[in-house]
Amino acid sequence: MSPETILHALAAAVPDAGITFDVSEKYQGDWLMRAGPDDAPLALARPKTTQAVSDLLRTCHEHCIPVVPQGGLTGLAGGATPVKGALLISLERMASITAVDSVSHVMTVEAGVPLQAIQEAADVAGLMFPLDIGSRGSCQIGGNLATNAGGNRVLRYGMARDLVLGLEIVLADGTIISAMNEMMKNNAGYDLKQMFVGSEGTLGIITRAVLKLFAKPQAMAIALTAHATYADLERFLVLTRAKLGGALTAFEVMWPDFYAQGIARGQGAAPLPVGAGAYALIEASTSDDSAESQLGALLEAGFEQGVIDDAVLAQSLQQAQKIWAVRDTSGELIKAFTPAGNFDVSLSTSRIDAFVNDCRARLEKRWPGVECYFFGHVVDGNVHLVAGNFPDGDTLALEEAVYACVRDFGGSISAEHGIGLQKRNHLDYSRSAAEIALMRHIKAALDPRGILNPGKVLA
Amino acid sequence: MSPETILHALAAAVPDAGITFDVSEKYQGDWLMRAGPDDAPLALARPKTTQAVSDLLRTCHEHCIPVVPQGGLTGLAGGATPVKGALLISLERMASITAVDSVSHVMTVEAGVPLQAIQEAADVAGLMFPLDIGSRGSCQIGGNLATNAGGNRVLRYGMARDLVLGLEIVLADGTIISAMNEMMKNNAGYDLKQMFVGSEGTLGIITRAVLKLFAKPQAMAIALTAHATYADLERFLVLTRAKLGGALTAFEVMWPDFYAQGIARGQGAAPLPVGAGAYALIEASTSDDSAESQLGALLEAGFEQGVIDDAVLAQSLQQAQKIWAVRDTSGELIKAFTPAGNFDVSLSTSRIDAFVNDCRARLEKRWPGVECYFFGHVVDGNVHLVAGNFPDGDTLALEEAVYACVRDFGGSISAEHGIGLQKRNHLDYSRSAAEIALMRHIKAALDPRGILNPGKVLA
Repeated sequence: MSPETILHALAAAVPDAGITFDVSEKYQGDWLMRAGPDDAPLALARPKTTQAVSDLLRTCHEHCIPVVPQGGLTGLAGGATPVKGALLISLERMASITAVDSVSHVMTVEAGVPLQAIQEAADVAGLMFPLDIGSRGSCQIGGNLATNAGGNRVLRYGMARDLVLGLEIVLADGTIISAMNEMMKNNAGYDLKQMFVGSEGTLGIITRAVLKLFAKPQAMAIALTAHATYADLERFLVLTRAKLGGALTAFEVMWPDFYAQGIARGQGAAPLPVGAGAYALIEASTSDDSAESQLGALLEAGFEQGVIDDAVLAQSLQQAQKIWAVRDTSGELIKAFTPAGNFDVSLSTSRIDAFVNDCRARLEKRWPGVECYFFGHVVDGNVHLVAGNFPDGDTLALEEAVYACVRDFGGSISAEHGIGLQKRNHLDYSRSAAEIALMRHIKAALDPRGILNPGKVLA
Repeated sequence: MSPETILHALAAAVPDAGITFDVSEKYQGDWLMRAGPDDAPLALARPKTTQAVSDLLRTCHEHCIPVVPQGGLTGLAGGATPVKGALLISLERMASITAVDSVSHVMTVEAGVPLQAIQEAADVAGLMFPLDIGSRGSCQIGGNLATNAGGNRVLRYGMARDLVLGLEIVLADGTIISAMNEMMKNNAGYDLKQMFVGSEGTLGIITRAVLKLFAKPQAMAIALTAHATYADLERFLVLTRAKLGGALTAFEVMWPDFYAQGIARGQGAAPLPVGAGAYALIEASTSDDSAESQLGALLEAGFEQGVIDDAVLAQSLQQAQKIWAVRDTSGELIKAFTPAGNFDVSLSTSRIDAFVNDCRARLEKRWPGVECYFFGHVVDGNVHLVAGNFPDGDTLALEEAVYACVRDFGGSISAEHGIGLQKRNHLDYSRSAAEIALMRHIKAALDPRGILNPGKVLA
């Protein structure tokens, strides 16, 4: 039987699987990468139940039909982009919030619930789900977990992995693994969910999750600081972590040319003059009203120790937003260049300055006149680079040069976006041959016929 | 060749493996369980290097010689207890702290470093390693990670799993996996270390680790509260989490008979009178000096809402220690009974009261006159029970009754001690057949000859 025939039979036998052979444009790629003309999928399933997902996978496993799991399709690595002859499985119709337990601080959800709906449901319960990324309105929690999403609050609350207590997963052969743990402490056997978080749909399909909720902070304060040198900024970072501890919720570093771009592309007066050696945006969040006084005391200490040159503590929400707006110029910067290089890498925090200097030097040597704008959440090691003004056609060479520099500093070629299709050929820049062999071994053990998201993560 | 001959040859070929055939009493078991006369190990290795661990495992794999990894031998589930004919591998001679990076807040260590030495090295650097358990002076970080240790600060800082960024692991066949990541954000491929954390030495041997460090809190405050009913206490818990947020570092509940024992066995006047429906010890830690004022405001709010009957806010270190001493009566209680039942289970926080009532009723029905003392870190779901005054010889029946109740409430038979040998026959009370089958599948994939800690976790 042809795969079409098999799927037609399955469509008739399992109405809950929601199979259609008319795959609309929406499902043909993620935010980064559309399927090419040679990658046409066979069909799309939009199952309504875990049992339907299981039925789909059992049949695909039996007949070696490739499967591409899809969430909100907002990924930036091609992880959900169709592959030739695949059955796409979108979780979008499994979008119920099953329970919110405000005593246990947990929420139980289906995989297709949009992140923003989860944030809002937590808010209604007087609580907070801290995972937050720009695509919150479209992305789905199943995709967030499958890619171990990071975002704006990692420093304080961790990655998606740190925010999940339990998962329900369907394995390649259709086996349903229900590991819907609700406890922070549970050492009864292997913590199976960990394998699936961040595996980008290559080891199983996440169908349900138990999420951790948190108390909302009572107060928040923002400051912008200017430093003569990066070395001063680094000393200020150490001071900040010591003084603010768990109250520190953002420490965003802007290198001087990035800051200058932020001011030039923004509106109104600069919060601080351009021309310093480094800038940092600091956010403090507290369970009482002390955020502003704590941040004020930190700035005083920084001046006293001579590691701050200039600083402004936001006195209004408007001023705070203005400071964040400078930091958020990155989106505009990317659009300003064609071609543009846009990188999401991570390094050990103490190696970031050396990396930035070396990476910039390498690119300027090879492409005189190239523009390099660095900024980063340096506490979690995450550095972003927007590069422009290099020749058309050199995008791959630029990637190669940046990733080679990351490799030489022992960093990660993907801080939070994952590997997907885009970075799989550079995986060995951040992981050893032994590590990649173990990944392949696990993949073979869990998906012996290689039907789950083939070609993603591992080439 | 006999296993003895093989190991004698290996001892000669690899002096760094530190093989001895005279296995002293120290290595014959953990704090819970000694090896029986039929479980005599063949030899003990105390390797000095990762390469030596690799050489040991490669040889044992080749010749199917069972291996039992050992850390500080303070486990409470028999996870490091010898098995017949095994080579014991103690990591105690790999005890170097390799690096402390106070900018990145990471420490790099070998697996045999005692937990307390890590805490002290962090302290010297002006930082904190928050993992803390009673056996801190003897237990080793490799064992803490292999068992995913919990302890006193889980509520705020998480389990051992949450405190590790990178691991070096030696697989059953001797392959060295170096995944010594130092970044909070790294999504370059599967996060391999997760499989090994909490696997109790059944999937690989941890040889090195990269640990997360934290800023020290600046102030800490302690209060004891009394509530008319557990329902009031639960309302107070919700209020506490909302008010204190990340400043809440302990919420220890004592049921009334436990509290009465704590007072009866303690010295001096009770911090609060006995006779209330439930008691809670609350600890707040802050990055400024507001811990006491925040805790005071919480108590006021609790009185206003009518969910606290009585409360005391410690005014001195001595008073704080006295409150903790009541909570720490558990050790004495266990010694007071022969036989004693001592349980470490977890439940969804909102089901704890129902569980405690039901469990107590079941035990009292079966063993009239049995004494049941419950206390727990209820935010992380962990409940402890000390039971006494039941007939000699009924220990196994008592375990069966308690674990059956845990099963009926969807809880975990092991919150933090792990499964080891002790709880392996009850694993299916907390995990489904599909989950256990997947655990076995992973075990077979990573350790196809079953040499690593055979019989532990999975019977």
